[in-house]
Amino acid sequence: MKARVHVTLKSGVLDPQGEAVRHALGALGFDGVNGVRQGKVIELDLDETDAARAETAVRAMCDKLLANTVIEDYDVEIAG
Amino acid sequence: MKARVHVTLKSGVLDPQGEAVRHALGALGFDGVNGVRQGKVIELDLDETDAARAETAVRAMCDKLLANTVIEDYDVEIAG
Repeated sequence: MKARVHVTLKSGVLDPQGEAVRHALGALGFDGVNGVRQGKVIELDLDETDAARAETAVRAMCDKLLANTVIEDYDVEIAG
Repeated sequence: MKARVHVTLKSGVLDPQGEAVRHALGALGFDGVNGVRQGKVIELDLDETDAARAETAVRAMCDKLLANTVIEDYDVEIAG
């Protein structure tokens, strides 16, 4: 079973990496970009075959390791 | 208009960051994780209101800046 986790900075948390990308896009001539936020995507290949149990496990992984829940949000997608 | 870009390493390209996460998950007692790949997600807030033109612009941004197309794949989602 495959799982995909998106880890993004909470809104309100400064994102210097995203800001750097926004400036670079402007310098390259791409106008009309009002904001850029950059996050992580983590793709996991799991032995677990039950979707509910897989989601519970992945959420535990996010809380313990994959995301810093003080400043980051995460969402989990499970695919067969 | 919002756009979301996923940038992931091409399959076959070594992902040491993903491997490090896999080892760390094992050390924390999460068994049954066969593979981990880590990529980037970039969320863009665009002035453009036409979905087709927005996608064309974002693909150009990926080719020029956001992705290293030698070793990375990207996919673009446009949301209203």
